[in-house]
Amino acid sequence: MTPELTEFFEFLRFPSISTDSRHKGDVRNCADFLMQKFTRMGLKPELHETPGHPIVVARNEKRDDRPTVLIYGHYDVQPVDPVEEWDTPPFEPTLVGDKIFCRGATDNKGQHFAHILGVEAALKEHGDLPVNVIFLLEGEEEIGSPNLAPFLEAHKEELACDVCAVSDTGMIAPGVPTMTYGLRGIACLEFTVHGPTLDLHSGVYGGAVPNPATIVARLVASLHDENGKILIPGFYDSVVDLEPWEREMWASLPDGDAATLAETGSKGLWGEGGYTALEQRWGRPTAEVNGIGGGYQGEGSKTVIPRSAMAKLSFRLVADQDPAEILRLASEHLQAQCPDSCRLEVELGHDGPAYVMDPHSDYGKAAQSALKKAFQSEPRLIREGGSIPIIQAIKDILGVDTLLLGLALPDCQIHAPNESFTVTNFEAGIALNRALLEELGKQ
Amino acid sequence: MTPELTEFFEFLRFPSISTDSRHKGDVRNCADFLMQKFTRMGLKPELHETPGHPIVVARNEKRDDRPTVLIYGHYDVQPVDPVEEWDTPPFEPTLVGDKIFCRGATDNKGQHFAHILGVEAALKEHGDLPVNVIFLLEGEEEIGSPNLAPFLEAHKEELACDVCAVSDTGMIAPGVPTMTYGLRGIACLEFTVHGPTLDLHSGVYGGAVPNPATIVARLVASLHDENGKILIPGFYDSVVDLEPWEREMWASLPDGDAATLAETGSKGLWGEGGYTALEQRWGRPTAEVNGIGGGYQGEGSKTVIPRSAMAKLSFRLVADQDPAEILRLASEHLQAQCPDSCRLEVELGHDGPAYVMDPHSDYGKAAQSALKKAFQSEPRLIREGGSIPIIQAIKDILGVDTLLLGLALPDCQIHAPNESFTVTNFEAGIALNRALLEELGKQ
Repeated sequence: MTPELTEFFEFLRFPSISTDSRHKGDVRNCADFLMQKFTRMGLKPELHETPGHPIVVARNEKRDDRPTVLIYGHYDVQPVDPVEEWDTPPFEPTLVGDKIFCRGATDNKGQHFAHILGVEAALKEHGDLPVNVIFLLEGEEEIGSPNLAPFLEAHKEELACDVCAVSDTGMIAPGVPTMTYGLRGIACLEFTVHGPTLDLHSGVYGGAVPNPATIVARLVASLHDENGKILIPGFYDSVVDLEPWEREMWASLPDGDAATLAETGSKGLWGEGGYTALEQRWGRPTAEVNGIGGGYQGEGSKTVIPRSAMAKLSFRLVADQDPAEILRLASEHLQAQCPDSCRLEVELGHDGPAYVMDPHSDYGKAAQSALKKAFQSEPRLIREGGSIPIIQAIKDILGVDTLLLGLALPDCQIHAPNESFTVTNFEAGIALNRALLEELGKQ
Repeated sequence: MTPELTEFFEFLRFPSISTDSRHKGDVRNCADFLMQKFTRMGLKPELHETPGHPIVVARNEKRDDRPTVLIYGHYDVQPVDPVEEWDTPPFEPTLVGDKIFCRGATDNKGQHFAHILGVEAALKEHGDLPVNVIFLLEGEEEIGSPNLAPFLEAHKEELACDVCAVSDTGMIAPGVPTMTYGLRGIACLEFTVHGPTLDLHSGVYGGAVPNPATIVARLVASLHDENGKILIPGFYDSVVDLEPWEREMWASLPDGDAATLAETGSKGLWGEGGYTALEQRWGRPTAEVNGIGGGYQGEGSKTVIPRSAMAKLSFRLVADQDPAEILRLASEHLQAQCPDSCRLEVELGHDGPAYVMDPHSDYGKAAQSALKKAFQSEPRLIREGGSIPIIQAIKDILGVDTLLLGLALPDCQIHAPNESFTVTNFEAGIALNRALLEELGKQ
């Protein structure tokens, strides 16, 4: 065991489960561990109280002749249930071959602790860093980061930086360095179709009045053509199509169609024609029903015409779709499709734009050089289909792009029993941090 | 108060709520009251035990030179909840003007007690009846008559008859005698669309795999054209269209379109073109969604692609649609519409054919003469949109048609607080029974 691994195991042993109030003390102890670590390394740490768990910030001396890099991570972890499915104790790090099994090993302790150790090694070797570094480590990511955006707002000046680096995303395969340069945006709405003033007997009235469940279904069906192309007028108007290099890059990745089927268990693919599964998941917008309901859903039958029925929709967005505009177009479309014999109610939900950074920018290229150095292999450039609100908050509040340099392997089991992180990626992460700060220092 | 009314009030006071086990004794006491009444009248009553509440049968002497008429009714009643909305005690009959307020006043004690009193009056006057009469009064109609069909099967011989008469349907308006000669049939199914093996993150996978909620909606939408015409191939093939006299008769009734809107509170009508609301409700088949569900239906949003979604459908049928054939056509249509990328599961539910008798048959004409005599007005011939399984059981097991001679007024509030029956209809019911048995005796 290297001293680095020993220290990492110590960090892993804190059961810093943010959602469980019985672990409040463990979360704080974990933050204290980081405070001590930063102090030993020679950085200046600060522990910031929040209405929830503390945020740890640590920095070196700020000098104007070098860029400032914010490194974000989270030291809280997911619960361990179902605990009986763990092969080893969830908070006793256990090395089996190359894998370290422990809750939080990949998500996110291993990934940000590698950055901490990279900085420590550079300080030991050179007594200084090529950049101003600010670590920002929160203890509430697994509960939705309720206090992070307010914290960024309140400390905008002290957190001012040129670029952010986060290792909390995935690698497409072991040994294949991966940079995520885009995330889809989101826009949600719920609509309700109101019909009769009470549930009706479907025998007495069926056939003469509109059935809200039928109308909801017809409105949902009006969203797509039979292949999955979205039919809301204007929906695709602002979509920036994928560039040839992106499609080429993604086509070179392990077969996304097969992986999509294997991971989901779906019998087949479905979606607008002309795009691969990865292109549809990462680079194209969607209109999905997240929930639909109306009438009697219990056992057996109850022959009613329900007084109302509803559906919850979410749209995943790509650049340059404006979430507010998409919600407006969708609402108008639904209103236009709803027959006059019913009343449609639309309630708008949360939204956020797509995030895309230029991977060929100077910072992007620096990150790719660092990935190549750390893994001795050509980095792959991907996007992800989900949204990461933190990245958007950093963009909105601090005004900087984030380099998403994931170290999570496809089989690392985050949020599930038997989470693991490999020693290989732990060491690659340390090397990645050193190379990254060097490359960014040249900018 | 006439002696008839006094006796009726006595009958009404039994809180014979069949669904509530605390009232089991009251239901039996009510049956005993009928037994004693029939004995006093000179009929031979029998109390038949069932696994639930007893069935009372009473008959006069059977003679081969006259037809046998079965008169069905039910002495059990609905619960009284919400009891605080009653203006008078639910089981203390209260006369206000022409109206007798009491639970069970219309449904169904008043309607069949009038028949009992009609027979009593005829016996008093003539010492005999023009027909063989069999009263069949059950105590489980409000809980779905679970023991009636087995009872009919077991006593087929003793219950053999030429025609059945039931007063348990509606009159279109006060003073307007109404005969219901048709009821729609029903066929139910539930279908489930299965997609991925687990609920998916709609960001990670959205756009590439089929969403079962979307597919369920598309299948439901495929059932109708935009006006409500059913698109299942072959669905209308066996439909006997309305005859000119029926459309003319129904057009002469109070405005069914306006009444449908007023009763349902629907903003507008919806249905296949070319038919009035009454024609659609009584004489045309339907495809209704009674329930639809999938994904997250709680507060706020949860951005999943649900692993499955379902809908419950019921089809209301008219002559000569075969329920099994309709379920087969519907299942085939759904299978044909479901994309290969999903798996469709169809579960068939209960069904029963439409019931239509010829109102211009000898018995039908006899019933109309009796209605005209009792109400001094031309009877109207209608159908109803719902199904009455008892009527179908009588047809299937005893092989006879039923004359549905309703005495329930539109504002009688059956199943609701402040149920009432008018003295006018109580007396008309007695007269109706006497006229009916006389007319039937001539056949």
